[in-house]
Amino acid sequence: MAETRKLTLSPRQTADFEMIANGGFAPLTGFLGEADWRSSCEDMKLTSGDIWPIPVTLATDLECEVGDTIELSASDDKPLGRMTVTEIFERDIDFEAENVYRTTDDEHPGVAAIREEGTRCVAGPIEADALPNHIDPVTPHLLSPEETKKAFADRGWKRVVAFQTRNPIHRAHEYLTKAALEICDGLLIHPIVGETKSDDIPADVRIACYEVLMKDYYPEDRVLLGVNPSAMRYAGPREAVLHAIVRRNYGCTHFIVGRDHAGVGDYYGTYDAQLIFEDIDPQELGITPLFFEHSFWCKKCEGMASGKTCPHDSSDHVFLSGTKVREMLGEGEMPPPEFSRPEVAQILIDSYRNAG
Amino acid sequence: MAETRKLTLSPRQTADFEMIANGGFAPLTGFLGEADWRSSCEDMKLTSGDIWPIPVTLATDLECEVGDTIELSASDDKPLGRMTVTEIFERDIDFEAENVYRTTDDEHPGVAAIREEGTRCVAGPIEADALPNHIDPVTPHLLSPEETKKAFADRGWKRVVAFQTRNPIHRAHEYLTKAALEICDGLLIHPIVGETKSDDIPADVRIACYEVLMKDYYPEDRVLLGVNPSAMRYAGPREAVLHAIVRRNYGCTHFIVGRDHAGVGDYYGTYDAQLIFEDIDPQELGITPLFFEHSFWCKKCEGMASGKTCPHDSSDHVFLSGTKVREMLGEGEMPPPEFSRPEVAQILIDSYRNAG
Repeated sequence: MAETRKLTLSPRQTADFEMIANGGFAPLTGFLGEADWRSSCEDMKLTSGDIWPIPVTLATDLECEVGDTIELSASDDKPLGRMTVTEIFERDIDFEAENVYRTTDDEHPGVAAIREEGTRCVAGPIEADALPNHIDPVTPHLLSPEETKKAFADRGWKRVVAFQTRNPIHRAHEYLTKAALEICDGLLIHPIVGETKSDDIPADVRIACYEVLMKDYYPEDRVLLGVNPSAMRYAGPREAVLHAIVRRNYGCTHFIVGRDHAGVGDYYGTYDAQLIFEDIDPQELGITPLFFEHSFWCKKCEGMASGKTCPHDSSDHVFLSGTKVREMLGEGEMPPPEFSRPEVAQILIDSYRNAG
Repeated sequence: MAETRKLTLSPRQTADFEMIANGGFAPLTGFLGEADWRSSCEDMKLTSGDIWPIPVTLATDLECEVGDTIELSASDDKPLGRMTVTEIFERDIDFEAENVYRTTDDEHPGVAAIREEGTRCVAGPIEADALPNHIDPVTPHLLSPEETKKAFADRGWKRVVAFQTRNPIHRAHEYLTKAALEICDGLLIHPIVGETKSDDIPADVRIACYEVLMKDYYPEDRVLLGVNPSAMRYAGPREAVLHAIVRRNYGCTHFIVGRDHAGVGDYYGTYDAQLIFEDIDPQELGITPLFFEHSFWCKKCEGMASGKTCPHDSSDHVFLSGTKVREMLGEGEMPPPEFSRPEVAQILIDSYRNAG
C-alpha cells in the first residue's frame, strides 16, 4: 500500500526543486527516471528528444517504494510540496561523471557532489506548494520565468540577451554584456545564486556589486537584474548548454558564452563550452548563443576590447590575474578603474575586511 | 533581323553592370523586365519570389528592338560586354518612386536619378567580358563575392559581419563594428564606392581613412577591407534590405543596420531602416541584421556607449554635429580623440586643405 514519506532536501536538491517547480528547468516536471538519466548522459537529450545536457536526479537512501508520496522540505525545513515515486533506480556514477563532466576525478566539485549524493535515485513528478526561501539580498531579485517574460513584454523587448555569472562584474564582463546589449533590446543579468564552491564570492556580496552597477552604469530601461536559483555543477561545456536552456525558459533569445564558461580547474579546454554549440541547432535549442573572448582595457585603443577587436600588444593591456586582484582587494587596495568600477571594488574591499 | 547596337552606360548603370556581373546582385543575371520591375516595386520581391527591394533597370533611349544585342561600355568607354534585349517597356516613375523611395519629391537624390534616366527600359541578360575600372585607391580593395567568400573560408571565419558605409569611420562607427565583431569571427568593412552625392566625402579620401584604421586600430586577422562598387540610391529602408542582400552575396552572415541607414534628408523615420526587417524572415533573406543605435564617448562610462548601454546624461557625452565636425576639420582643427582617431582626422584635414 502506498505510504507517505518525508525527506529534507540538500541545498542542491532544494535548488533543483525550485528550478523544476518554477519552469526554469522546463520541460522537466520532476526528477528524472533511469531512461531519461541515461539518455541525458549519453546523448544530451531526454527520451522525448528534447536537449538536456545534465541529468537532474534525486539521489536518496530514504526508504520508499514506487507509488509512495514523499513530502519534500527545503534544506532549512520549509515544506515545499511532494513527489510521487514512479521509479527507483541505481545510477552508475562513473558513467555519469565521464559523460557529463568528462572526468571521474573526485577533485572536480561537480563529480564530488554526485559521488556524495550516492547511486540510488528516486524519480517522479513533483507538486509544489511553495518555493524555497533565499537570503534577504537575493529575495527582491527573485523573478520566475513567467515574471521575466512578462517584464520583457511590458518593456517591449523582443531580443533579450542573458548573462550568467557566479562572479562580481568587473569592466571586462560589463563590456561583454554591453556589446551584446548593443545588438539586442534588453539585457538580463542573471547571476547564479544556488550553491557554489566555498571559495567563490558569496551571493550577498555579489548582489551588492550588481546593484551598484545597475544604479550607476546600466540604463534601467534596458537592463533587468534577476537571479538563477540553480546550483553550479562546474560541468563546463554541458553546463553552458544547460545555462542556455534555462535562460530560454526565462524568455531570453540570446545567451552570452564566454571562454571557460562554467569551467573549473583544467578539466575543459578554453573554447570547449563554445565548441559544444557547433553540434546543436539553435532553432532546436530555442536560444542563440553569443561567443565572447576575454576582454580588457587597451591603452592604445583607449577603450575596452578583446583579442578579436584590438591589434595592439599585450603590454598595452590592463591585465590583472585573479590572484593579483584578490590580493589587492584583500589589502584594501583599489584596482585601476580600467579593471573594476571603483564602486564595485569598494564593496569587495569591505567584504574582505569583514571576512578577515 | 536582330542587330548589334552600342551603348555607353552612365556611372550608375556601370555600377549596376558590375554588381550583376560579379554576383553582388545575385540572383539577378541581367537588367529587369516589366514583371520583375513591378513586383519589386510593389512587393519587394522578384516574380521568382526572391526578396528584391529596389528594381535594377536599364533606362535608355537607344534605338533597338527585342532580339538585338547591345554592346555595353563603361562610362569611361571601357568595353564591358553585352546584353541581349528580351523586352522593352515603359516604367511609371512616380509609381516606382512612391513605392521604393516613399516619395516622389525631385529633391530626393534617388528619385531625381530615376527621373533623369527616363521611363523607357531595355531588359535582358548580360554577358560580361570585363569589369569596370576604378580609381587607383579603390583597386587594391576590389574583391568579388567569390574572393571575399574564399578569404573568409581561408581564415576559418564562419560568422562574418559586414559594415556598409559611405562616410569616414569615426569612433562611433568603429565602436559599432567592434561590438558586432565581438559576437562574430570576422568583420568585412565594405564601403560603397559607386556614385554618391556630390557633398559626400570622395571615395579616395575615405579609403585612406579606412586604411589607416586597418593599420592602427583593427586586427588584421579579424578584419577585411573590401569595397561595394554599387551606386547609392539613398532609398533608406529599401536600400538597407538591398545592402543586406549584397553582403549575403559577398558571404557575410550578419549585417549592421544603424539608425537612418541609407537615408537622406527627412524622408525616412530614424528607425524605418530597422523596422522594415520585422516583416522579413532572416532565413529567407539569408543574412541576420544587427540593429544599432547612435553611439558616443561617455565621460562617466569612460568608454564608448549608446543610448542602450549608457545611463548617463547627454551632457556627459562627447557629441559633435556633422556640421561642427566639418567646420573643425575645414579649419584644420582636430576633433577630440574620443570623437575621431587623430590619424583619421589628419587625413580629413589634409583633404579639406587640398580641396580648399
